[in-house]
Amino acid sequence: MKIGIIGSGHMGSALGRIWGRNGHDIMFSSRHPSELEGLAKSIGSNAGYGTPQEAARFGEVILLAVPWGQAGDVLSSIVPLDGKILIDCTNPIKKDLSGLELGQNTSAAEEAAKRALGASVVKAFNTAFADVMRSGSRVFEGHRATGFYCGDDQAAKAVVSKLIDETGLEPVDCGPLHSARYLEPVTGLLLELAAKEGMGTNMAIALLRR
Amino acid sequence: MKIGIIGSGHMGSALGRIWGRNGHDIMFSSRHPSELEGLAKSIGSNAGYGTPQEAARFGEVILLAVPWGQAGDVLSSIVPLDGKILIDCTNPIKKDLSGLELGQNTSAAEEAAKRALGASVVKAFNTAFADVMRSGSRVFEGHRATGFYCGDDQAAKAVVSKLIDETGLEPVDCGPLHSARYLEPVTGLLLELAAKEGMGTNMAIALLRR
Repeated sequence: MKIGIIGSGHMGSALGRIWGRNGHDIMFSSRHPSELEGLAKSIGSNAGYGTPQEAARFGEVILLAVPWGQAGDVLSSIVPLDGKILIDCTNPIKKDLSGLELGQNTSAAEEAAKRALGASVVKAFNTAFADVMRSGSRVFEGHRATGFYCGDDQAAKAVVSKLIDETGLEPVDCGPLHSARYLEPVTGLLLELAAKEGMGTNMAIALLRR
Repeated sequence: MKIGIIGSGHMGSALGRIWGRNGHDIMFSSRHPSELEGLAKSIGSNAGYGTPQEAARFGEVILLAVPWGQAGDVLSSIVPLDGKILIDCTNPIKKDLSGLELGQNTSAAEEAAKRALGASVVKAFNTAFADVMRSGSRVFEGHRATGFYCGDDQAAKAVVSKLIDETGLEPVDCGPLHSARYLEPVTGLLLELAAKEGMGTNMAIALLRR
């Protein structure tokens, strides 16, 4: 398959290298194509380099792997893309990692905190299926499912972390209550998989480390 | 610890049962408290039942486990909650599971699709750290990290699924491109953990099944 890589930073180069070694034809690209010669040569004769426009013309599949802030301009410069597949791996993360630049504006937890006068609100358990909590174990093939939680009161979080641990989930502190904007969509994902993709509710999300 | 359970459906009853068996004092509650007698008795003398107001007064920790649509009214009926910890496990999921009722309005992928004229856009790889893709393996303690992807063109998704599989990630189809609204916040979560919670980038999200 012919794959054009738009943006050849850590992600673009890593994926291009994997696919190139797997026998696909790769064209890396950036605004400074000559800097990509070494990368292409390290893979072999099935890898080349060029401008984003050249990579877009070349690829049947195009990987969009530029920083989010550049995505709009780059796309405008490579359209039309008739009949091509565009893999978008961008993330609209703010530069200071304080949130997403688009698509999000509040969370149920933050709304609850406005109403729960006097209480320290901790978001927890929302990413776990009730069926899993009712079952005999929170362990999946040797891995504990993760109990993500977040909140603005450290002492309250310490209490909740222990309550999570007691259920068998592995507590993972996800920072301030604002992170509920990340945790609630995780459940959106799980429900999509369980109900619409037919995977059922005997599953869980885990943070894997090594 | 005294724990008040607001809403005694699948999640509230499951967590109350676990914590009750662990020796905590539990008060279950609902709008129809008498229906909770059997649940409380099945745990023992450290479990009781009452109205949401009684459970809120009782608990040092309060679990909010009602359907999202009822959360606002219930909270208004139990405040003030001075000095208490409120665990919010609600999710603002639409009844037809078509999205979140608040907090989300678009995604980078949907914005990219507006600009990528002619292309079939598939969201993929955004939940994987480049450091993991550059490393020798996508396996964490025997588990493959998950390669979540979504898009509206089934043929394009079949191609991308294979390309994901080639990288060592386990492809999981997350439905329409709209699901990018779930996948992009996952990366917000991972970056929060990696950068602000100091966990580094040698980690990944996995969907566990059994």
